[in-house]
Amino acid sequence: MKTYTLAELADQFKLTLENCHHPETVISGVGTLQNAGLGRVTFLENKSYLKYLQNTKASAVILSEQHKSNSNVPVLISKNPYVSYAKIAELFNHRSLPEAGIHSTAVIGKNCEIHESARIGAYCVVGDYCKIGPECCLYPHVTLYDEVILGNRVIIHSGAIIGSDGFGNAHTGTHWLKVPQLGRVVIGSDVEIGANTTIDRGAVEDTVIEDGVRLDNLIQVAHNVRIGAHTAIAACVAIAGSTKIGKYCLIGGATSISGHLEICDQVMIGGMSAVIKSIHQPGVYAGPPVAQKKMDWQKMTVRMRHLQDLFQRVENLEKKLRDENGHS
Amino acid sequence: MKTYTLAELADQFKLTLENCHHPETVISGVGTLQNAGLGRVTFLENKSYLKYLQNTKASAVILSEQHKSNSNVPVLISKNPYVSYAKIAELFNHRSLPEAGIHSTAVIGKNCEIHESARIGAYCVVGDYCKIGPECCLYPHVTLYDEVILGNRVIIHSGAIIGSDGFGNAHTGTHWLKVPQLGRVVIGSDVEIGANTTIDRGAVEDTVIEDGVRLDNLIQVAHNVRIGAHTAIAACVAIAGSTKIGKYCLIGGATSISGHLEICDQVMIGGMSAVIKSIHQPGVYAGPPVAQKKMDWQKMTVRMRHLQDLFQRVENLEKKLRDENGHS
Amino acid sequence: MKTYTLAELADQFKLTLENCHHPETVISGVGTLQNAGLGRVTFLENKSYLKYLQNTKASAVILSEQHKSNSNVPVLISKNPYVSYAKIAELFNHRSLPEAGIHSTAVIGKNCEIHESARIGAYCVVGDYCKIGPECCLYPHVTLYDEVILGNRVIIHSGAIIGSDGFGNAHTGTHWLKVPQLGRVVIGSDVEIGANTTIDRGAVEDTVIEDGVRLDNLIQVAHNVRIGAHTAIAACVAIAGSTKIGKYCLIGGATSISGHLEICDQVMIGGMSAVIKSIHQPGVYAGPPVAQKKMDWQKMTVRMRHLQDLFQRVENLEKKLRDENGHS
Repeated sequence: MKTYTLAELADQFKLTLENCHHPETVISGVGTLQNAGLGRVTFLENKSYLKYLQNTKASAVILSEQHKSNSNVPVLISKNPYVSYAKIAELFNHRSLPEAGIHSTAVIGKNCEIHESARIGAYCVVGDYCKIGPECCLYPHVTLYDEVILGNRVIIHSGAIIGSDGFGNAHTGTHWLKVPQLGRVVIGSDVEIGANTTIDRGAVEDTVIEDGVRLDNLIQVAHNVRIGAHTAIAACVAIAGSTKIGKYCLIGGATSISGHLEICDQVMIGGMSAVIKSIHQPGVYAGPPVAQKKMDWQKMTVRMRHLQDLFQRVENLEKKLRDENGHS
Repeated sequence: MKTYTLAELADQFKLTLENCHHPETVISGVGTLQNAGLGRVTFLENKSYLKYLQNTKASAVILSEQHKSNSNVPVLISKNPYVSYAKIAELFNHRSLPEAGIHSTAVIGKNCEIHESARIGAYCVVGDYCKIGPECCLYPHVTLYDEVILGNRVIIHSGAIIGSDGFGNAHTGTHWLKVPQLGRVVIGSDVEIGANTTIDRGAVEDTVIEDGVRLDNLIQVAHNVRIGAHTAIAACVAIAGSTKIGKYCLIGGATSISGHLEICDQVMIGGMSAVIKSIHQPGVYAGPPVAQKKMDWQKMTVRMRHLQDLFQRVENLEKKLRDENGHS
Repeated sequence: MKTYTLAELADQFKLTLENCHHPETVISGVGTLQNAGLGRVTFLENKSYLKYLQNTKASAVILSEQHKSNSNVPVLISKNPYVSYAKIAELFNHRSLPEAGIHSTAVIGKNCEIHESARIGAYCVVGDYCKIGPECCLYPHVTLYDEVILGNRVIIHSGAIIGSDGFGNAHTGTHWLKVPQLGRVVIGSDVEIGANTTIDRGAVEDTVIEDGVRLDNLIQVAHNVRIGAHTAIAACVAIAGSTKIGKYCLIGGATSISGHLEICDQVMIGGMSAVIKSIHQPGVYAGPPVAQKKMDWQKMTVRMRHLQDLFQRVENLEKKLRDENGHS
């Protein structure tokens, strides 16, 4: 395992080392504020963790200028502590990628173009006419149907299914007729797709995931969806067909988005939201219900069912008072 | 790639060709109203796309009688344009199915009956005592546990798991005891099951999916559920144990349905709904919360918490007014 | 198939056999109250099934003392009928586990410790440095990334992905930088994990699933989550990063839980709930919205949007009445 001194880290990542008597302190890994010990560097990003800063036993903390005075240990000052942490943590990353090249158990279809630097894990299945760009990484058990196009450096986690048929069914009056799904899935560069996420092929045109998008686990992307560049979507989000999501959006986990909507750039949607209308203004949106004590919730539910009555009763009261005042 | 003239398409699918000076126009594929060009046929089904009809560059549009006057290009008039489109699109479908027969990498259990016309994709695993009927198609990476029964022409997409143990746990007071799951999964004919969908085996009796059912991706069907014929369920729906869903139902995506319920035939449930009671009347049901500007939502949430107070205050006002009127 | 007499079952599981003239009646399997026939034993646990008790054709019913008088057939009285049923049903369990040992198609990484009594199914992929304890059972198509630790008797269903990267992304201002996910997944003993469930590795420290936990299908467990011993979580639950769930909790299906929360021991959360705050008191919590007739729901939605107005109007009325009374 490689090690680095605090001075080397500060120098390599252009951080300011302060509050430090021993810049030659050896760092051999990263840790959390609560549990990092000697030889570990940690970081402060989420303010709710500020309470752990004072007692940290780490050898150094990456943080922003404004928090340096709260630290009793050496600090590495960064304008973006989480980014600096990510880069330093990468130095100590011992995880193995799938083996370079195509694993002997992978099944590759006809007429594929797979860059020699791509990594295709065990039991991956790649359909016909797929393109897989340089430095892509498919973890084991990824399935690409036919005509899935990946740019460069795309990471796909195990169990993800890309290019399955969209949910196209025409009702004849007595039964469903399958509507052929003729589009492709086109994925840009620097995209990461989580475990067991599903992305359906387009019905006529393509389903498109633009550059730099991050999709977490167990997400459903229906046919003809377009997700704009650098948008990040947390786990268990369901996006229905033909919806277009803009660039630089942030969508919280377990949110559902109806079909045929447009969500503009730079929209942040809280977790567990239900989006049933297009959003044309950048901003922060939310709409989760809130779990509460069951009895309170039951009362509230009853009350909500009587809400219309209440409006009527208030109207009656207002009318009565107006009448009285008119009479008086 | 095969091509067809407009006249041939009209004839083959019993459509009325109108507004057409060149019935010999050659059609080589399908497209969307917005982007189809010469040689492509498109369709109008969803009225929200009517705005694209006037400027379409397609060589013909499949639509219903009522919309023909809005088209500047040749029309193929159909009583069910989406069904007609599905049939025509099938002519141009170049997608490859899994290879005919059983892929060399598929693992097949003991005592299975697999029809010779079935297609079993790469890395499928079929448990013992399974039956797979004529023209079934299992895409790569489908897992059938033991005793899964498929009718004819069942399509199962990659990553679907059929027949896993239901969630049966008996609490001893100190820990959970696994309850054996002894039922099967029985699936009718002409069923399609989406990617990464899970269908658990029954606890005692069978989990049943009747003929013609359509299940999208990432759906959970718990043990002992029965889904009636020709019901279609969109992605990310969760159906808890022992619930019975009728025939010809339509369930929107991301809806959750509690256990031990009965939903009668011809019920349409909107997306993102929470169904916690049985439904005994056909009709349209919904219950999603609605995402809104975060500040509006926060205000509403606070208000909702004070709803009970409000009812009390209105009651007080009403009493006061009654009292006053009584006194006056 | 082995058979047992009612007397043998009563004796083996310490149940009281009553209302029985033929203790030598042969039992060859289990069934439901509604459909079990001669030679089958059934059980009554959920009171909503009491209506089926009187007409059951089963040869015996396992039930609690309080319900015995409602039965017309022999009863096996138990303090915990569902546990007794589970044990008896296990006698008749004919399901095959994956073959003993490591299936010839499984891919095992370097430096793994896999106990000789573990069962690793077809097409499982086990990363480097994994430990799999005695009597573990991985059904086909389970993926363990590197450094996943399983205790004893862990059952993992098909399609589950354990140890995929957590959703760690640092925003540089123009794009997302992947944050290395350096922790492990550590799973205790007697845990069962459902089909297509995903459990991400920790970012720095480990994601931990303690002893006796039960996870259903299609659950997302994000990085650094800890799930306390003997907690059971139903299908389609999403748990965001760093949340800690206590011991002996029960979480209903399709519930979502935000990140960085703490939920104490013995909390029961209803299905379809949205948990966005920590819970520090044991008890029953819920918060699902409720599906209703679409027109009612639409009215209610409109009313809710005007809720703030209503509060204002009631305040105005109250003020008016106070003023009037002050004047009178």
